[in-house]
Amino acid sequence: MDPTSRIELALEAALGHAATPGCPPKLARALHYAVFPGGARVRPRLCLSVAHACAEEDPTLPDAAATAIEFLHCASLVHDDLPCFDDAALRRGKPSVHVAFGEPLAVLTGDALIVLAFETLARAAVAGPALSARLACLIGRAAGAPDGIAAGQAWESEEDVELAAYHRSKTGSLFATATMSGAASVGADPDAWRMLGERIGEAYQVADDLRDAVCDAATMGKPARQDAALDRPNAVSELGLEGAVKRLEGLIASAIASIPDCAGADDLRAQIGAEAKHFLPKGLARVAA
Amino acid sequence: MDPTSRIELALEAALGHAATPGCPPKLARALHYAVFPGGARVRPRLCLSVAHACAEEDPTLPDAAATAIEFLHCASLVHDDLPCFDDAALRRGKPSVHVAFGEPLAVLTGDALIVLAFETLARAAVAGPALSARLACLIGRAAGAPDGIAAGQAWESEEDVELAAYHRSKTGSLFATATMSGAASVGADPDAWRMLGERIGEAYQVADDLRDAVCDAATMGKPARQDAALDRPNAVSELGLEGAVKRLEGLIASAIASIPDCAGADDLRAQIGAEAKHFLPKGLARVAA
Repeated sequence: MDPTSRIELALEAALGHAATPGCPPKLARALHYAVFPGGARVRPRLCLSVAHACAEEDPTLPDAAATAIEFLHCASLVHDDLPCFDDAALRRGKPSVHVAFGEPLAVLTGDALIVLAFETLARAAVAGPALSARLACLIGRAAGAPDGIAAGQAWESEEDVELAAYHRSKTGSLFATATMSGAASVGADPDAWRMLGERIGEAYQVADDLRDAVCDAATMGKPARQDAALDRPNAVSELGLEGAVKRLEGLIASAIASIPDCAGADDLRAQIGAEAKHFLPKGLARVAA
Repeated sequence: MDPTSRIELALEAALGHAATPGCPPKLARALHYAVFPGGARVRPRLCLSVAHACAEEDPTLPDAAATAIEFLHCASLVHDDLPCFDDAALRRGKPSVHVAFGEPLAVLTGDALIVLAFETLARAAVAGPALSARLACLIGRAAGAPDGIAAGQAWESEEDVELAAYHRSKTGSLFATATMSGAASVGADPDAWRMLGERIGEAYQVADDLRDAVCDAATMGKPARQDAALDRPNAVSELGLEGAVKRLEGLIASAIASIPDCAGADDLRAQIGAEAKHFLPKGLARVAA
């Protein structure tokens, strides 16, 4: 099965444990709405790619890790769009969850997705309870405090923001966890895979900054120019357009160079090089050329 | 060590993994504020009492289960107090988290506590990875969808509310999980302990309804008459004052009768009988007499 179908099936199966008969109907619909249709599913694909490169045999734990990571990502988007944060009316080209279902259900949808992420990992313990617990530690670290997604968003409430900590937590942590969990889910050493995830996460952040600065809302499926509007740090305002594109390319090269020796290293290098081409917003290909 | 000190120490130790240097300072303070000083810690004490009655040897998993349950309870209070839900300014006798720290940090505090609950369970896997995963399944079920706390709160957004499902999810699920997890954390059969938790949970809900109906905000440490104000179901409006007190007593008796055979059954029966006396608001003792 191709990785994309595999991820969609795994997400659907895991969601089926929460959005079942007996669940309040609006919450069930909001959970599905928050997860499908997805974005590029970059994080879970990265997780499965690393598991595959490390000679995956049983898909149970890699699927659970990929699913948990995507649920946590979706939860963070739902909460980040709330009126008290970004107040974003649009996400993935449709009304954000709080606009479609109201604020209470948006808060609860995020909460339930966080819980479901960890339930999914716990259910996969049949395939290896110690590995499942290790994944829950890794993935939990990327989601909460002191330096996971929640911490990243919390830096926005501080007067003295540590910029590096802000980016590392809000975006980088879940990328680093994607590669580390892919390795850990098949019993490989997660630490050797941290840099790959961190570099791709940084590249993704720069790409997001570029999109925010140069694309319109219709192209992005969410509001544009939010960084300037909300006075948030952005690589384009720091480095200029060309500088940001160069930074992006440097990060991708460094990501690929960091891939440790493993059964599928060559394939993985080729794959990440190919995928990274899509990071750059279309209108900017000429700047990079 | 007495159970109360043991719980406070376990909570403090687990929170120390999140609210560390490196954590955004306001989030670290809000996390501590949401957990300390606590309420009666009824759920974690119930969990530890059952573990003790089932001949607990190693405290690692019981402590982790009790801590996870209390973190999830605290998270649900923080989110339930938000302006889009109860809009409660007061909790445990002090300003609620969103009043003290702002809405964004209140949302993130709840999120981070949910994550920390599962990280705490995963860390305790050193004492038994399969049991730790089983606890994460049990406790996750009580927190999310289809019938955990998030689902219970989501019933408030439905026109056709199933009252039994609403109460079972919003309050009962975490009580049932407290007794079941206490048993599971020492390798005993959790299902035999479900009814004890469910009955105590129902009793606690009736007691809460009584307090809401007859106490003032100063006594409760949170706003009074919220059920009438928010048009929520309440045992006093359904059964009258005396009827609600009788219901409470019947539930406690049925809870005690449900305790399965185990090493510490007699002590546990006596303990629950003694603690249940405090469920009844002080002014109502004469109604019950």
